[in-house]
Amino acid sequence: MKRHLISAADLTRDDAVLILDTAEEMARVADRPIKKLPTLRGRTVVNLFFEDSTRTRISFEAAAKRLSADVINFSAKGSSVSKGESLKDTALTLEAMGADAVVIRHHDSGAPHRLATSGWIGGSVVNAGDGTHEHPTQALLDAFTMRRRLVGADAGIGQDLAGRRITIVGDILHSRVARSNVHLLTTLGAEVTLVAPPTLVPFGVERWPCEVSYDLDSVVAKSDAVMMLRVQRERMNAAFFPTEREYARRYGLDGERMARMPEHAIVMHPGPMNRGMEITAEVADSPRCTAVEQVANGVSIRMAVLYLLLGGNEPAVTATSTPTEESK
Amino acid sequence: MKRHLISAADLTRDDAVLILDTAEEMARVADRPIKKLPTLRGRTVVNLFFEDSTRTRISFEAAAKRLSADVINFSAKGSSVSKGESLKDTALTLEAMGADAVVIRHHDSGAPHRLATSGWIGGSVVNAGDGTHEHPTQALLDAFTMRRRLVGADAGIGQDLAGRRITIVGDILHSRVARSNVHLLTTLGAEVTLVAPPTLVPFGVERWPCEVSYDLDSVVAKSDAVMMLRVQRERMNAAFFPTEREYARRYGLDGERMARMPEHAIVMHPGPMNRGMEITAEVADSPRCTAVEQVANGVSIRMAVLYLLLGGNEPAVTATSTPTEESK
Amino acid sequence: MKRHLISAADLTRDDAVLILDTAEEMARVADRPIKKLPTLRGRTVVNLFFEDSTRTRISFEAAAKRLSADVINFSAKGSSVSKGESLKDTALTLEAMGADAVVIRHHDSGAPHRLATSGWIGGSVVNAGDGTHEHPTQALLDAFTMRRRLVGADAGIGQDLAGRRITIVGDILHSRVARSNVHLLTTLGAEVTLVAPPTLVPFGVERWPCEVSYDLDSVVAKSDAVMMLRVQRERMNAAFFPTEREYARRYGLDGERMARMPEHAIVMHPGPMNRGMEITAEVADSPRCTAVEQVANGVSIRMAVLYLLLGGNEPAVTATSTPTEESK
Repeated sequence: MKRHLISAADLTRDDAVLILDTAEEMARVADRPIKKLPTLRGRTVVNLFFEDSTRTRISFEAAAKRLSADVINFSAKGSSVSKGESLKDTALTLEAMGADAVVIRHHDSGAPHRLATSGWIGGSVVNAGDGTHEHPTQALLDAFTMRRRLVGADAGIGQDLAGRRITIVGDILHSRVARSNVHLLTTLGAEVTLVAPPTLVPFGVERWPCEVSYDLDSVVAKSDAVMMLRVQRERMNAAFFPTEREYARRYGLDGERMARMPEHAIVMHPGPMNRGMEITAEVADSPRCTAVEQVANGVSIRMAVLYLLLGGNEPAVTATSTPTEESK
Repeated sequence: MKRHLISAADLTRDDAVLILDTAEEMARVADRPIKKLPTLRGRTVVNLFFEDSTRTRISFEAAAKRLSADVINFSAKGSSVSKGESLKDTALTLEAMGADAVVIRHHDSGAPHRLATSGWIGGSVVNAGDGTHEHPTQALLDAFTMRRRLVGADAGIGQDLAGRRITIVGDILHSRVARSNVHLLTTLGAEVTLVAPPTLVPFGVERWPCEVSYDLDSVVAKSDAVMMLRVQRERMNAAFFPTEREYARRYGLDGERMARMPEHAIVMHPGPMNRGMEITAEVADSPRCTAVEQVANGVSIRMAVLYLLLGGNEPAVTATSTPTEESK
Repeated sequence: MKRHLISAADLTRDDAVLILDTAEEMARVADRPIKKLPTLRGRTVVNLFFEDSTRTRISFEAAAKRLSADVINFSAKGSSVSKGESLKDTALTLEAMGADAVVIRHHDSGAPHRLATSGWIGGSVVNAGDGTHEHPTQALLDAFTMRRRLVGADAGIGQDLAGRRITIVGDILHSRVARSNVHLLTTLGAEVTLVAPPTLVPFGVERWPCEVSYDLDSVVAKSDAVMMLRVQRERMNAAFFPTEREYARRYGLDGERMARMPEHAIVMHPGPMNRGMEITAEVADSPRCTAVEQVANGVSIRMAVLYLLLGGNEPAVTATSTPTEESK
């Protein structure tokens, strides 16, 4: 593992499988009487959020606290950033305060990369979503969810997603979730198909390691997982899309369409869901929809990532932390 | 005890006395060298606030931290809730993240009940104030304050408030504090009288288990405790109340009026006080006014509630936590 | 040491040296495997911020957490303070909730003093910046930085800054940093010179224990440290200053001017820096500029202050906290 997690594209197959396997161990911590590991005691994790995202922020916060790290939330709104402080000055400040990891969310694609490669920061940088670029922990939790559902929690250990067929549907153009998933799923051996309105397909997509289709019905029938992206209403207009109903009809997932999926196939959504838009309530609430599991898996993945980036040199769970040891 | 605390109306006399007795134990933790119990280590308490209320939020936060729980603050402002996420999706997210308790403040009456009965949440739900409906921990801390002052801290153990005469004064119509107090005080055997301008008395009050009076002077003389509610200026206008001075004259508590109270009787206020409006500075700062004690008691009550809802199966303080044990 | 830290002017030479020496011990905690001391376990530190200042808030937060205190952030925006609650009621609330220390930032000069002398608070009050009055922990971290750089970390123990020549440049009129530094540096035996545009020199400065000069070039040549204050653009206009370029030319520090400083002399800045305004990028990024060290030293100083105000009766680091002991 490198010192930072900026892009799903940077992960080798072995890196990715190690993270998924470690997350599997972390998921078991939640079943113990004291749902906490002492691994990162005395370490400081800073959530540096230039964009609001309560869900992602509290997922990282919960993950860090379960590893006994101290967490400091730094919302860039109303901070000296708005007085014109540069990313550099903010970074140097956090570094000087002893941040062991900086989890950064930024509206500019590339900001986490800049932070990691600048030399401003001695600790680890974790990209929690940058512009339309990447959101690697989202891709990891998605892959973890697929492996658990399609291969099995125990059976999946050490395994990748070789040969699985994954379909991603919606606004690919603006989606960092889609971008990170395409990279990671390909690395893990899966075959990815993108389905999107033509105006929401990125320029140059023909060089991406995946298929593109405009016919959702034919694709879902051959998918092991169908991932529905959240529609941003304001972007729908920009894409000259006629109406919401028209979008839902052509690119949304309803019960009828879901029925065409193979029996074992799952429906995924990064949340929050627009019920009635890209997904009907029937599908959202069906046992095939993993949206809620994805959230839970997000905490396990973020524990694994923080553990591997910061702790790294001893086994995650087994040796260091019997319940007796922990309760001291 | 049930798994949730939604309404003071749900508490039996024995439930309520158990909470008050447990709070008495919790209050003693504040006197110890290390003011902290390990009871909820590894548990996560989420403060889910759809309405600003710093005082209530930090009271729950302090209570949870003194029990060694991890606390995550989730202000619904600027969160994906404002992007149209439903209460359901928020709940499922918190559940998936492993929240053991969700403390919810919501502008809609009934939101905590919906959260608790929906099946979305596996942990405990604590109502921290919903619309004009209820605010049960406020009523519990009020009852705790009365028992300590009128019966005694030690002498009160196991006791209720049978036969005590409590007067609640002000805008009953919009007050969840009044509603919760009427329920709980009645359950604890007290006799409650409400005093309010006619336009601020709720419709159907004749079915409430209490008296209503419009003559504050005659009532205070027979009260063991007089609870002054905070006036919301904007609601005063809506109630066609002539002037602030007129309100203060008829429904405010000043030194002269306080002097008519029995010698042992106390003045209560949930805070923050409008000095000069419903209470004069003289009364607010008198030793008979328990406003500040109520705040301190709030932390003890919230510790007791979280402990009983989440920990529950061992004694709160005695066995698990000698100072030696804790300092490990 | 007194119970509060309101003003650098209140500190004796021995108080100040004790804080600097304790901060030196605290700085070493950052080098240990577990960067945390158990000293303030069970104590609650409240950050009461009436003004946004993320940098100062997280510095205190990091300091308190490294001492194992519980931290509660209370931003006065959107709190009941905005519903008209007085500082008194807020203080009584925090006191009742068991705050052991209240770190207060307030737009009104004198608010921390009022809080400390009112009797409302039983714990310690730490001024984190009030109006244009004082910012004592900033002055302490500045003095700590000077002692480390000009005398040495080990060699400095027990020493003050006798005979050092310190120059402070910029908007002295509105600067609490300048005010606190003049007091503390004088107490520590340094000789202070202020350089500022005539319109930004405070009325009555001739009674301050320092020199005033309008000729930066001649002063820097004789300085051991040159401290550049941040320019507030909006105040520049109010001061009828012709242009930013003109300000930079006369009162900014560029490479050429820095070259006139003695070889051992350092450049200081409280941050965030306006590169191109009061300081050029060349100077800001030079190894002579201590801006980043100042931030790191801020955490050590705040740990020392909290430790001495709250813990105080045992050695800070040595006895209570071998790494073995801590990791229990």
